Amino acid sequence: MITGMRPVPGRTSGRRLVFWLKIQRCGLHVRNPGKLNMSSIAAGKAKRMGGNVSEDANDLLIRGGFLRQAYSGVFHLLPLGLRVQDKLEGLIDRHMRGLGASKVSLSSISSQELWEQSGRLTEGSEVFRFHDRKDTRFLLAPTHEEEITSLVGSLTTSYKSLPLRVYQITRKYRDEPRPRQGLLRGREFVMKDLYTFDYNVEEALKTYKSVKHAYTQLFDELKIPYLVAAADSGNMGGSLSHEFHFVSTKGEDRVVNCSGCDNVYNEELADGQMHNFNESASQSAAPGFQTEDAPAEGGTTISNGMWMAISHDGSTLLRGWYPKYSMQNDTIEPVERQVNSHAVKAIATAAGVDLDLSVENPLAKWTALVQSGASTQKPRVLDLYDSQVRVYQRPPLSDLLQQAGYTAEDIQYSMLDRFPGTENKLSLVRVHDGDRCSQCADGHLTSNPAVELGHTFHLGTRYSEVLNASVSVSPAALQGSSTTEVQSTKEQIVPMQMGCHGIGVSRLVSAVANRLSDSKGLNWPRAIAPYEVLVVAGKGMDSVAEQVYDNLTSNSKPVDTLLDDRDKGMGWKLGDADLIGYPVIVVVGNGWKNKQTLEVQCRRLDVCQDVSLEQLPSFVEGLLSQL
Amino acid sequence: MITGMRPVPGRTSGRRLVFWLKIQRCGLHVRNPGKLNMSSIAAGKAKRMGGNVSEDANDLLIRGGFLRQAYSGVFHLLPLGLRVQDKLEGLIDRHMRGLGASKVSLSSISSQELWEQSGRLTEGSEVFRFHDRKDTRFLLAPTHEEEITSLVGSLTTSYKSLPLRVYQITRKYRDEPRPRQGLLRGREFVMKDLYTFDYNVEEALKTYKSVKHAYTQLFDELKIPYLVAAADSGNMGGSLSHEFHFVSTKGEDRVVNCSGCDNVYNEELADGQMHNFNESASQSAAPGFQTEDAPAEGGTTISNGMWMAISHDGSTLLRGWYPKYSMQNDTIEPVERQVNSHAVKAIATAAGVDLDLSVENPLAKWTALVQSGASTQKPRVLDLYDSQVRVYQRPPLSDLLQQAGYTAEDIQYSMLDRFPGTENKLSLVRVHDGDRCSQCADGHLTSNPAVELGHTFHLGTRYSEVLNASVSVSPAALQGSSTTEVQSTKEQIVPMQMGCHGIGVSRLVSAVANRLSDSKGLNWPRAIAPYEVLVVAGKGMDSVAEQVYDNLTSNSKPVDTLLDDRDKGMGWKLGDADLIGYPVIVVVGNGWKNKQTLEVQCRRLDVCQDVSLEQLPSFVEGLLSQL
Repeated sequence: MITGMRPVPGRTSGRRLVFWLKIQRCGLHVRNPGKLNMSSIAAGKAKRMGGNVSEDANDLLIRGGFLRQAYSGVFHLLPLGLRVQDKLEGLIDRHMRGLGASKVSLSSISSQELWEQSGRLTEGSEVFRFHDRKDTRFLLAPTHEEEITSLVGSLTTSYKSLPLRVYQITRKYRDEPRPRQGLLRGREFVMKDLYTFDYNVEEALKTYKSVKHAYTQLFDELKIPYLVAAADSGNMGGSLSHEFHFVSTKGEDRVVNCSGCDNVYNEELADGQMHNFNESASQSAAPGFQTEDAPAEGGTTISNGMWMAISHDGSTLLRGWYPKYSMQNDTIEPVERQVNSHAVKAIATAAGVDLDLSVENPLAKWTALVQSGASTQKPRVLDLYDSQVRVYQRPPLSDLLQQAGYTAEDIQYSMLDRFPGTENKLSLVRVHDGDRCSQCADGHLTSNPAVELGHTFHLGTRYSEVLNASVSVSPAALQGSSTTEVQSTKEQIVPMQMGCHGIGVSRLVSAVANRLSDSKGLNWPRAIAPYEVLVVAGKGMDSVAEQVYDNLTSNSKPVDTLLDDRDKGMGWKLGDADLIGYPVIVVVGNGWKNKQTLEVQCRRLDVCQDVSLEQLPSFVEGLLSQL
Repeated sequence: MITGMRPVPGRTSGRRLVFWLKIQRCGLHVRNPGKLNMSSIAAGKAKRMGGNVSEDANDLLIRGGFLRQAYSGVFHLLPLGLRVQDKLEGLIDRHMRGLGASKVSLSSISSQELWEQSGRLTEGSEVFRFHDRKDTRFLLAPTHEEEITSLVGSLTTSYKSLPLRVYQITRKYRDEPRPRQGLLRGREFVMKDLYTFDYNVEEALKTYKSVKHAYTQLFDELKIPYLVAAADSGNMGGSLSHEFHFVSTKGEDRVVNCSGCDNVYNEELADGQMHNFNESASQSAAPGFQTEDAPAEGGTTISNGMWMAISHDGSTLLRGWYPKYSMQNDTIEPVERQVNSHAVKAIATAAGVDLDLSVENPLAKWTALVQSGASTQKPRVLDLYDSQVRVYQRPPLSDLLQQAGYTAEDIQYSMLDRFPGTENKLSLVRVHDGDRCSQCADGHLTSNPAVELGHTFHLGTRYSEVLNASVSVSPAALQGSSTTEVQSTKEQIVPMQMGCHGIGVSRLVSAVANRLSDSKGLNWPRAIAPYEVLVVAGKGMDSVAEQVYDNLTSNSKPVDTLLDDRDKGMGWKLGDADLIGYPVIVVVGNGWKNKQTLEVQCRRLDVCQDVSLEQLPSFVEGLLSQL
């Protein structure tokens, strides 16, 4: 059964805010649209059939009447979907107000010129660009650092106006090459973006801490487990950042967390170093060329692998030697390892090599360049050795030389088995479940695919410097600042210390749907459910159902209730309710006829209990408080 | 003084949701930004100075911290502006729910292909167009008839699902050639658009009536006089439409209304006909060539004017003879008349001539074409005679002939003094205040510039036919339908009867600001005020002010109150409050110290009264109920 919304004429009281649109055919994105039996998902049948366990949450959102795809990565929100989004916005508003943040609404249109000024607009940028009739170059903003920095910079001159915290919840745009998974990766999406402004680093870090705390409180309210990972801040220009993730098979990130300590990080953050690792468990000797083709002493590597990449200028071929198969302490089967390209890139960067990870066949490209003689630099080979791999005494170069028509003297050869500038050994491989934690050296790591739902970034002066967003600060206020020395008694002009903090609103709706849906349908946490409670009226039970509705909504703690008084059978209505995923369902049916009780159902808590009308509000509240 | 918002650290309780951003310099769109004296608008001084009466409301919105211009016709909403917009959205939501309408949120991105299908996208269309990375052609939707018709068409098959009423409040886009007057005519703006679907014309007209009624209720709540005008539905394709206007010097429409009857119409709707006009008061004779250059008998015309236009193909020169100066019944001074080009166009169209009103010098164009011999048609002159003008016996052609090197025989000449197909005389001129109403022939007309804030359109099947949005209807349900004859007992497939009904949300904010602002600043009606009441605390009166705040907000009828406890003088605070335009201001100052009273100010009702804390809530509510 497919549901949407429609207004029922004459039913316009506040009591029944949502109306129903019965959809006989379903144009968009429903699998096997012709085969959907309108009653087959009625509760009883679904129970017996075991439901369609593998159904994607995005399909459920479409079948349940929450949204429709308009174009690839572009969606229309139908009434139920908009209600969920509005609830989420309300939740975010509350926590942003708690931070003392003011809500604004910035234009979706931004100028390409401004983005060029900040250096973020290049040919490959994934933004939609357009010209107006006067050929002014605009773009549809994917985020608003430039606009807010320019706006706040024009409105703020003194440190006395700080801290300033400004946020909005608006549509954003990205010319995504592969839009996918419904709202998870769209081209038009709603995001909350908070921008913070402080006058020195200490204040900015205090702000950062408050925002991170508000985020944990906000995510706590969803009552869904989440991970807070240290994260690579990528091209945002900052150094301190955290990501808020749901573990999910739909996730495109991988988050690693430890069983023994608070080490949680996005795999992208891997720095290629072995930290605090017990030397005895690993290789013992100092760096140097040793015997060939054997695992490191004391190591658990069974066989080595070689992984290649090339520098952007094409002159350096990087070879990473890593444990292709290794044993874990507590397993018997060898584990296949994979190279973490982020880790390799971090090491290469530290060694002064700018890797281009997008090249599919690095060896062919390097060989071709060497042979063409086009490179002005001497061809170079850089070998990296994972700590689990014994360093080759005579690393194999012959193949390379032969192909390129060179001798060993023509190649500049170097190797690394320690991270440049440190004594830390290298770690080239992705974490495998059960690996030891390099932070506490005690717990075991788990690596999970995850969906990033929020992030906090300390930006520093990345934008405020280029866009001239500065304030004057008194020497007293500057005191304690780590960035500026107090040198005069006059006020100084300093660029503001900024932070940017996002929450993917559309994405969160989809991620929650994914996380909690089951074989029967969706399942919303109280905080963002389209309605908290559905009252389902059996045939001829409308007036009792209205009494029940009043009982729940006229309470001192009214709950957000919907009354289903459509002219349909109970089975059909319950199936529909399960598909839509109301947290609590109150059935006004035979129980009432027989013994004046109401059946309260809660699929998530596995509750199905008969309750009297008097007990109903407190019983329902008891359930909702757990959801 | 320029205000915006900033969070004050530590002040994050629900009590003080808005914080303040003191702006020392103001980058955007403030006249004489360097000359704004931060305290000169403090209440006392402003009173003595008489204020700046001519200040534009858009400037007030900027100075008051409601918005900032980002680009021409593109604005950022600051916290106060967003609050006003949110209040307006809430008001609209309430009235849309009253109609049983469901709220959705359609994508801002639409495909050019879809718009070509409906025939609305042409080269000159004022829309922003862009391509994605795969060169798919998109546009930023200025309105959503195409998308909603296509969506509802895909979801609805039976008349039993109707009536369907769906609305949204979202950003719209228009590549406006001349963005102007702030939010009144922008390129990015927020609109409410409601779409209605019915299965026959009778039902659709019932819907139309309900929507129009809901609109009057909504506009009534603003407590600002408005006009409901019959309107030309332009390129929307329908025939029945009304516009909701505020009379305003900023307006780009002109609305005519009668003192004696309910005749209210947009000047654009003028059809060029004299309806129900008393013949004796006008010219008596039958059409034909009569004496030259004299006013019509019994008419009040003092001298005639000639107005010219040319057809799109350039072959027809139209000349309109109209009363350039005429007397009105109750005045002595002659009145200068102007041609209403909409009226002339309506007559020309009925006569088979397609006028191009954009040509600046029609005579030069016509002469050039005649001389070049490029036109395949015989050059034509069409003379129209206003009912107030005597028809020329020998209309002057000599100038034309001489310039073109032609004789009278080379020109196809015709004239009209009755509307084609009717006996109605022509009316070429714009209404002048005091003109007699042609509908009741009794009242007097007034013509005012006006801002269109809302419209209701009956669309019929304009979109549902081309986009295949149909439903099956039973013969019984079809009965009574004027569009389809009942011919069979089988269900029939009919295109849905649609309506579209807009409210310019951004524009309404600006129009209200314009309508109610005075020399001291803005002035909001209760319904959309950023806050209903401001409590201003004098120095050292913070705790009493908090008591006052509690008294107003913990009431059984809590009012939306803000507490100004900034560290500023009373005069400065009151000036700021006047600029921002809170409906009611409660001053906690000397009155409290002396006799425990609060000064309640209401600029719009010219109230300034001392009230006790106990009386305060009911006194304030009494004022608010009038605002």
